[in-house]
Amino acid sequence: MKRQLLLFLFLAISGILNSQSSQTLKIRSYREQKESQWMQEYIQFLSIPNIAADTAGLKKNADFIMQMMRKRNVQNVQLLFPSTKTAAPSIYGEVIVPGATRTLIFYAHYDGQPVDTLQWAKGLKPFTPKLLNGSLEKNAAIIPFPANGKYDPQWRIYARGASDDKAGVMAILSAYESVIQTGFSLNYNIKFFFEGEEEAGSTHLNEIFQNYTSLLKSDLWIICDGPVHQSGKKAVIFGARGDAHVDITVYGPSRPLHSGHYGNWAPNPALMLAKLLASMKDDNGRVAIRGFNDDVTPLTTLEKKAVSEIPSVDEQMKEELKFVKEEIPGMGLSDAIMIPSLNINGMQSGGVGAKASNVIPTMASAVLDLRLVPGNDYKRQQQRVVDHIRAQGYYVTDTEPIEAEKKIFAKIAKVTLSGGYNAQRTSMSLPIAQKVIDAVKSTTNDQVVLIPNMGGSLPLYLFEKYLKATTITVPVANHDNNQHAENENIRLLNLWNGIETMAALMLMPPGPL
Amino acid sequence: MKRQLLLFLFLAISGILNSQSSQTLKIRSYREQKESQWMQEYIQFLSIPNIAADTAGLKKNADFIMQMMRKRNVQNVQLLFPSTKTAAPSIYGEVIVPGATRTLIFYAHYDGQPVDTLQWAKGLKPFTPKLLNGSLEKNAAIIPFPANGKYDPQWRIYARGASDDKAGVMAILSAYESVIQTGFSLNYNIKFFFEGEEEAGSTHLNEIFQNYTSLLKSDLWIICDGPVHQSGKKAVIFGARGDAHVDITVYGPSRPLHSGHYGNWAPNPALMLAKLLASMKDDNGRVAIRGFNDDVTPLTTLEKKAVSEIPSVDEQMKEELKFVKEEIPGMGLSDAIMIPSLNINGMQSGGVGAKASNVIPTMASAVLDLRLVPGNDYKRQQQRVVDHIRAQGYYVTDTEPIEAEKKIFAKIAKVTLSGGYNAQRTSMSLPIAQKVIDAVKSTTNDQVVLIPNMGGSLPLYLFEKYLKATTITVPVANHDNNQHAENENIRLLNLWNGIETMAALMLMPPGPL
Repeated sequence: MKRQLLLFLFLAISGILNSQSSQTLKIRSYREQKESQWMQEYIQFLSIPNIAADTAGLKKNADFIMQMMRKRNVQNVQLLFPSTKTAAPSIYGEVIVPGATRTLIFYAHYDGQPVDTLQWAKGLKPFTPKLLNGSLEKNAAIIPFPANGKYDPQWRIYARGASDDKAGVMAILSAYESVIQTGFSLNYNIKFFFEGEEEAGSTHLNEIFQNYTSLLKSDLWIICDGPVHQSGKKAVIFGARGDAHVDITVYGPSRPLHSGHYGNWAPNPALMLAKLLASMKDDNGRVAIRGFNDDVTPLTTLEKKAVSEIPSVDEQMKEELKFVKEEIPGMGLSDAIMIPSLNINGMQSGGVGAKASNVIPTMASAVLDLRLVPGNDYKRQQQRVVDHIRAQGYYVTDTEPIEAEKKIFAKIAKVTLSGGYNAQRTSMSLPIAQKVIDAVKSTTNDQVVLIPNMGGSLPLYLFEKYLKATTITVPVANHDNNQHAENENIRLLNLWNGIETMAALMLMPPGPL
Repeated sequence: MKRQLLLFLFLAISGILNSQSSQTLKIRSYREQKESQWMQEYIQFLSIPNIAADTAGLKKNADFIMQMMRKRNVQNVQLLFPSTKTAAPSIYGEVIVPGATRTLIFYAHYDGQPVDTLQWAKGLKPFTPKLLNGSLEKNAAIIPFPANGKYDPQWRIYARGASDDKAGVMAILSAYESVIQTGFSLNYNIKFFFEGEEEAGSTHLNEIFQNYTSLLKSDLWIICDGPVHQSGKKAVIFGARGDAHVDITVYGPSRPLHSGHYGNWAPNPALMLAKLLASMKDDNGRVAIRGFNDDVTPLTTLEKKAVSEIPSVDEQMKEELKFVKEEIPGMGLSDAIMIPSLNINGMQSGGVGAKASNVIPTMASAVLDLRLVPGNDYKRQQQRVVDHIRAQGYYVTDTEPIEAEKKIFAKIAKVTLSGGYNAQRTSMSLPIAQKVIDAVKSTTNDQVVLIPNMGGSLPLYLFEKYLKATTITVPVANHDNNQHAENENIRLLNLWNGIETMAALMLMPPGPL
């Protein structure tokens, strides 16, 4: 008895003891009755093409979602348009709760990444959803949809958008239905916002925010997008890294030269670029550009603790990705995404393989991707790269060098700065943050992984800038979902768990935020 | 008078005083009568397509050349076939001189580089020869062929093969005609050998040499191919560098990874390759691979003197190629081609420009071109590059790495060694070498540039290996001839001078070789 108590205390202190609330069990029970019906609805939803190029398809998706919302008695359902009427609209809906003074708004997006149908596995097509008895990578087979409506939670649906992010739409709306039909009462007004241009870069989101500022007023945006932690545990993510690009081109002779007649006399731009890129990181993989890490806002005690508790997936991922050593020796993935990064996306000079010829190429180019963390300013970070290139003896220009420049400077780099927005991180010490964490914890017996910011980038700054809003991301999809690629899929258990997570968030207790 | 004598002595000592012999003046006078007729013949010759893919065209060229030879009373004219009868044959002919104990054989090739007709300037086509009143780069215009048969020597003919190397065939056969018709008597038997596969890599030349060893017996091969020195001066070239390739691929994660989620944790192969390539040369452009220069046979006193006398074209070429600093600071082009070189032909990882995406690429590749000088063994030189890669911590394999290898080694390089033959250099101190130099000098008032080896590579080792032959290259074309590219051309003066050069070589005095 005493030992059990000690174990309990140990688990409680180490913070990994959660327990599924009776509320969650009721939501689950409702879902079990509805599975078959929801699956039919979801299959219909996934059958409607949702790629950026197909405006008609996107509109059909919007129609379908509005029907889903109305069926669930969501009020004031409407399309929100940017000034450009040809852009895919966002969809809005709300549930005003008498007496509620606070509002939660749930975000997901219904558009998907472009598809290359030929790349999909045999029997699979992006917009003909199929059921598989597991993961394709583990040799699962396509099976018929069950006549008895009984689904094994390890089964998966394969289709574009199955995870990213129609799963978000489905989890949010099914959660709302469950909450209402199970008889719980809400403490918050609930709003819904489903974007139609996320995969196209959210280019009109700022306009929609400006056009509907008061409609979109809320105390918290819950972003339901992306995968849970690679360990399979649920995750709450408080921010995202920013992103910016630097394109570099360096120059050799003005025409491709015979490498025998002129090699090692004429400057070789491929070697110049190799030396320049090599100078940007030391032999331990650390960025060697002056000041690159100077502006980083240190993690708070709470954030440090959260990072230290992120389960390591390093060995699992190395196994999956077939390499044995991380770029910065000894630094795990959880820590690596908390610092600014510099990564080469691409590099090219002359030809390789069958395209190689005996030349000194005329130029060499590279594309660098900079990720930013709180404290970094993307323009300042890009400027540091430019300064570094100058410090290596380069004359830097942002246009194609002209002959007059080539007659003066031995080393010329054309540098183009593009993209760019800063990181965003919501404080984990806000009362609302703790409420979100508690809500997600109430749905699982397992650890909930708290991530100060994801490694990837999202334009969360738009929410801050145009709506002064607080955002917290709570994903639902499995990490091995192939989002953005062929064979995208959702494991049903992730969808079911996601519904429970979203329901718990809708039912958060009132109190200070 | 005394001053003139001093000037004469000074010029004689400094070796740049040549004088056109009366013999040359007679040859010139004959050429002046024949210009119009020869031009008609040359235009016909250039109108016959001569690219590797067009076997019928190559055969028509061979037919035409055989007619040219028979018209000039060359004897025993025949096609020399390799074992593979579909390959373009070489053409042989001979002039046996009563009493002559020594034989000179003149080499040129009649096949040309592939053509991309769309790349040719307006009004020009590869196999429709046109006359221009100068160089296209200097805005010359297309002009009609002159009705009066008078050609300005600065005019140029534009057509594929005009320089490389139908000019060689034309110069050799017109020189022979001039020699005979002007009444000179020959001291050597003269043989002719015109290859049809040079631009296709001379893949059957070894077979032809083996099949016709006794027919091709000679004391000297005179290779009439390539351009004269960039200064415009005539050149005698005693060898060529060897060539070999090293292809390198290094590996990152097994699939392209999101650079936000995994950047700076997963190893980036583009950075790995950049660091590897950067390690191969120091900051002064010198190859930093251990032993790379160890085997070089030092230049002889004669060769050193020749190199020191090569006119510098560095400033002219930098101006033309639009760069201001050579790769090895302070080392001119003439010296740079006397040492082994390492040059990056191409380098590639992920995509750049419109093809860039936010990924960590899975691999990065480079193609290295090694040029070799006498003393180098191409396999040993390739091995030094492999050893260098190993010394940078790489596991080197020559096949695509398998999963088991990826689980052991952090840095894997697939290295493919290809191509490869050694340099060749004929001693400048051979009596025959001096005879060749003297003969060329007798045709010009200007310096003759003596080059121990050219920077580029030719399979001259085939002549040594299969025929035990001595080779010396005496080019005729202008250096700005666009050979291998669009708008190939020959300046008429170079063709006329070339005829005088070839005639002088045919008329070399007898004596020890």
